[in-house]
Amino acid sequence: MKKLLIASTALVLTAGAAAADISISGYGRFGLGYTSADVNPMGGAASTWVEQRLRLNIVASTTSDMGVEFGAKMRMQYDDSNTMVAGNRAQFFVSYEGFYAQVGNITTALDEDTAGLFYATEIGLTDTGFGDSRSDFFAYESKAGNGNKVGVYGKYTISGVTLEASFINPDHYDLNGVVAGSVANDKTETSFVASYEGGPITVAAGATWNGAGIDGNDVWYLGGKYAFNDAFSAGLTYINEGESALVDLGSTTSIYGTYTVGAMGVTAYVAQIDNYDTAAPKSDTSFGIGASYDLGGGVKLLGAVHRDYDEETFAEAGVKFAF
Amino acid sequence: MKKLLIASTALVLTAGAAAADISISGYGRFGLGYTSADVNPMGGAASTWVEQRLRLNIVASTTSDMGVEFGAKMRMQYDDSNTMVAGNRAQFFVSYEGFYAQVGNITTALDEDTAGLFYATEIGLTDTGFGDSRSDFFAYESKAGNGNKVGVYGKYTISGVTLEASFINPDHYDLNGVVAGSVANDKTETSFVASYEGGPITVAAGATWNGAGIDGNDVWYLGGKYAFNDAFSAGLTYINEGESALVDLGSTTSIYGTYTVGAMGVTAYVAQIDNYDTAAPKSDTSFGIGASYDLGGGVKLLGAVHRDYDEETFAEAGVKFAF
Amino acid sequence: MKKLLIASTALVLTAGAAAADISISGYGRFGLGYTSADVNPMGGAASTWVEQRLRLNIVASTTSDMGVEFGAKMRMQYDDSNTMVAGNRAQFFVSYEGFYAQVGNITTALDEDTAGLFYATEIGLTDTGFGDSRSDFFAYESKAGNGNKVGVYGKYTISGVTLEASFINPDHYDLNGVVAGSVANDKTETSFVASYEGGPITVAAGATWNGAGIDGNDVWYLGGKYAFNDAFSAGLTYINEGESALVDLGSTTSIYGTYTVGAMGVTAYVAQIDNYDTAAPKSDTSFGIGASYDLGGGVKLLGAVHRDYDEETFAEAGVKFAF
Repeated sequence: MKKLLIASTALVLTAGAAAADISISGYGRFGLGYTSADVNPMGGAASTWVEQRLRLNIVASTTSDMGVEFGAKMRMQYDDSNTMVAGNRAQFFVSYEGFYAQVGNITTALDEDTAGLFYATEIGLTDTGFGDSRSDFFAYESKAGNGNKVGVYGKYTISGVTLEASFINPDHYDLNGVVAGSVANDKTETSFVASYEGGPITVAAGATWNGAGIDGNDVWYLGGKYAFNDAFSAGLTYINEGESALVDLGSTTSIYGTYTVGAMGVTAYVAQIDNYDTAAPKSDTSFGIGASYDLGGGVKLLGAVHRDYDEETFAEAGVKFAF
Repeated sequence: MKKLLIASTALVLTAGAAAADISISGYGRFGLGYTSADVNPMGGAASTWVEQRLRLNIVASTTSDMGVEFGAKMRMQYDDSNTMVAGNRAQFFVSYEGFYAQVGNITTALDEDTAGLFYATEIGLTDTGFGDSRSDFFAYESKAGNGNKVGVYGKYTISGVTLEASFINPDHYDLNGVVAGSVANDKTETSFVASYEGGPITVAAGATWNGAGIDGNDVWYLGGKYAFNDAFSAGLTYINEGESALVDLGSTTSIYGTYTVGAMGVTAYVAQIDNYDTAAPKSDTSFGIGASYDLGGGVKLLGAVHRDYDEETFAEAGVKFAF
Repeated sequence: MKKLLIASTALVLTAGAAAADISISGYGRFGLGYTSADVNPMGGAASTWVEQRLRLNIVASTTSDMGVEFGAKMRMQYDDSNTMVAGNRAQFFVSYEGFYAQVGNITTALDEDTAGLFYATEIGLTDTGFGDSRSDFFAYESKAGNGNKVGVYGKYTISGVTLEASFINPDHYDLNGVVAGSVANDKTETSFVASYEGGPITVAAGATWNGAGIDGNDVWYLGGKYAFNDAFSAGLTYINEGESALVDLGSTTSIYGTYTVGAMGVTAYVAQIDNYDTAAPKSDTSFGIGASYDLGGGVKLLGAVHRDYDEETFAEAGVKFAF
C-alpha cells in the first residue's frame, strides 16, 4: 500500500505571510508496571501489567498580518484499559510576543506550572511522584470531560519571570446538570503562579482558590531548586493543601535531587505529609528513585521504584518516544 | 518536546502521477454570545457565554491515471458544551473536470448551495441569520448521525452555471430502527438547485421534495443578488416553506445588503414570515446587522446583533481563523 | 477557504538523525452490494445497498541513534451503517533490521499472515472469501474493543522466510468484567506462522492454541501457491478448524487461481467444508469469482460474485482507492 510519510523534527513549511500550520505531536510509551497493593492503577487485581499510552496532539494555527497567532488544539489519547479513543474538548489560544492566552479546555496555572516545581517529584515512565499535591484542582482534560466547564488562561514571560493566571467556571452554560460530568461544586476556580529561572536558581510560588470549584478548597505552594553544577541539582517544594469533603489535608513537603551524567539521569525524592485525605496511612513519608537513559531521536528508557504512604511498592520500566 | 510542523496555505507536494494527497483544513472560532431569551442556544439559562467551535476536516484523495480524483472526508468538530469529539460518517467523492459527485454522508443540494443565496442572511461569528429556512431538510452531518442514511449528490459547473442534485434514503440498510437516530419519516428526499453567477448578477433557484424524509414536506426558493459596484451589493431571497407536523410553514422573504470598504464589511438584513412553525411569534419580522474585519492570514474579527421573531436580542462577537 | 494540502506517495521529509515521522495512510471504498439472503451484512433486510468504508491509519514513529525505530498506530475507520467514528486502541511497535515487534492492540500471527495464504480466497471490494477460516481467533481491532486485552507480536524475516508469533491475554488487567467487551473465555491465545516466498513458490503453515481465548479451540493450516508464469498462479489452503461452543468445526479446503493480464486480474476459488458451525448448510461447497482493474494512482475497480454454503448469492462492485 502506498503511504503518506510526512515529517519531522522542527520542520516548518510556510507559504507567504498568510501561513497556516498544522502540527501533529505527542508521544507513545509502553513498558511494565508492578504494584504490591491489592488493586492496580487500572482498578484490576493484576500485580504486574503492560503500561500503555499514546498521545496525539493536533494543533492548527494561523498568524494575522500584525503577527498575532491564533490556534486551537485537539488531543486524542489512549491509556491502558481504554476501549476506544475520542478527541477531547477544544483549546483555543492566542499568542503575541511575550503574551500567551487560552480559552476553553485550558491548562490551569497549577497544571501548566512552567517552572515544574509543583510536580518536581514526578519520575519514571508515567511521571508518578508521591510528592504531588493531594488536593483537588482543575487541569487540562485529555479526554471526555464536563462540557459545561469553560476557562481562560493567561501567561506573560519576561526576563526569566513567568506569570500565569487561570479562571475556570465549571457551570458556564448553566445546563442544570444535563451534561455528563457536570459538577455539584460550581464555584469559579482562580489560580496564580509566578516563577523565575535565572542561572542556577529556579523559584516558584502559586495558589488556587476554590480548587475544582469546591468552595473554600484553597491551595498554595512554594518551591525552589538549585543547580550546584552541570551534573547535580536539588530542590524543595512545600504545598499547603486544601480541603476534601470538609477535611483539611494539611501539607506536603518534598525534597528531591537529580544527578545527570552523559545520557543517564537519576532522580530521587522523599515526601512527607502531616495529614491525609482518607484513613490514616501507615507512614507519613514516601520516597522514590528513578532513572532515565536517552537513546537519542526522542527515545528514552525510563524506570522508577516508589514506596507510598501505605508502604506499598510501585515500580515501572519502559520506553517513551516523543514525535 | 520535538514537534512536527507541517504547513500551509495551498502548499501541494506531489510525487509522480500516482499522487495521493492528505489535507487537514478547517477553522476555529471563539468569542462571546448574548441572548435576551430565557434559554441560550446550548439549552442553559446563562444569558452570556463563551462561543466555541473547532472544525477539523481530514480529506484523503488520489487521482487515477486518466485524471479522475477519488477521495473521502472525515470531520471532527467540537462545539460549545460538547463533552468529547468523534469523527463523523464518511463522505466519498469523485471529481472529473466539471463533474463532482458524493456518496455517503453527502452535502445535499440545499446544504451545498453553491451560490449562497439560500443562506444569504447568515452573519457574525456563528453564521446566524433569521432569514434561513424554517423547514426541515437533510444536510451534511458534522457529528454522529443516522447510520442508516445514505445519499448521492452530483454537481456540474459550466460557464458560471452550477446544477446540483441530491437524493437521500434515510432508511437505506433497512435496519428496522436498530440504529440510533433512525427516523420514522423514511421517504427519499430529492433536491435540485440551479444557480448562475455572471458579472454583477447572482441568481439561484432550488427545491426539495420530502425534505428530511417527511412525506409531502416540499420546499422551494428563488434568490437574486446584484453588485451595484465594488463596495455594495444587495439581494432578495424568497423561500416557500414546507410542512412541520402537518402545519404549513408559509413563506420566508428576506432582503439584505453588504457594504465593503478595505478590510471591513458590513451586512444587514430584514426577514419577514407569513406563518410560523409553533406558537404565533410576537412579530412577523426579524432583522440583524453584522460586521467583519479581516486581520489577514485567515483571521477575521466578527460581530453581529439580531432581533428575532419573538423580539429577543441575540448578539455575538469574536475571532474566526481558517487553516 | 484555505487548505493545507500535504502529500504524497512515499514522500519522506526528515531533519537530521533524530527524525520523527507522522504518516497518514489508508483507503476508501464504495460501491454496490447485493445478497439473495434475507438479511444483509449490516443486519437489515435490504437486498442491495451502498457499500462504504474509510480507513485512516495515523502512524507516529521516531528512530533512536542506534537505528531502532519506535512507533505507534491509531486507526479511525468508518463502515457502512456506523453512526460515528472513534479511534481504536493503540498499537506500539519496535523495528530493528529484520526484527519487528508489536505491543498492545496487536495483529496476531494469523491476522498478519505475511504470505497471505490463510486469506487466499478473499476477492472483490470487501475482500470476502468463503474459504476463510470459520473458527474464532483474535485479530487487530480496527474499532472499539476489549480494553483488557493486551498482546505481544513478533516477526523475523530473513532470506524469504518469515517467522511470526503472537500472544494475547484477553483479561490482562483483571478488571473483573468491568470493561465493556471483556470475555468469559480468558485463556491466553498463542499463535505461530512460518512462511516462505522464493521464485514461483509461496508456502505457509500456522497454528493457534486457545483461539479467541477459548480453552481447547486450536486451529492449524497449511497452504501453498505456485506461479506457473507471469500471468497465472494457483494454490491450495487446508485449514483444520477449531471448536465453537464445544462443536468441532472440521476442516476447510480451498483451491484458487489468479490470471493477470495488463491492468486486469481475475481470481476464482472453490472451497469445501466437512463440518459446519451451526445448522447443516445446503451445500458443503462454496465458490466465487472476482475481477480487479487497476486505474493507476492507487485506484482500483473491483467486483465479485460468490455462492455461499447456504447456496445464497453475494455480489458487489465498486472502487477502492489507497492513499
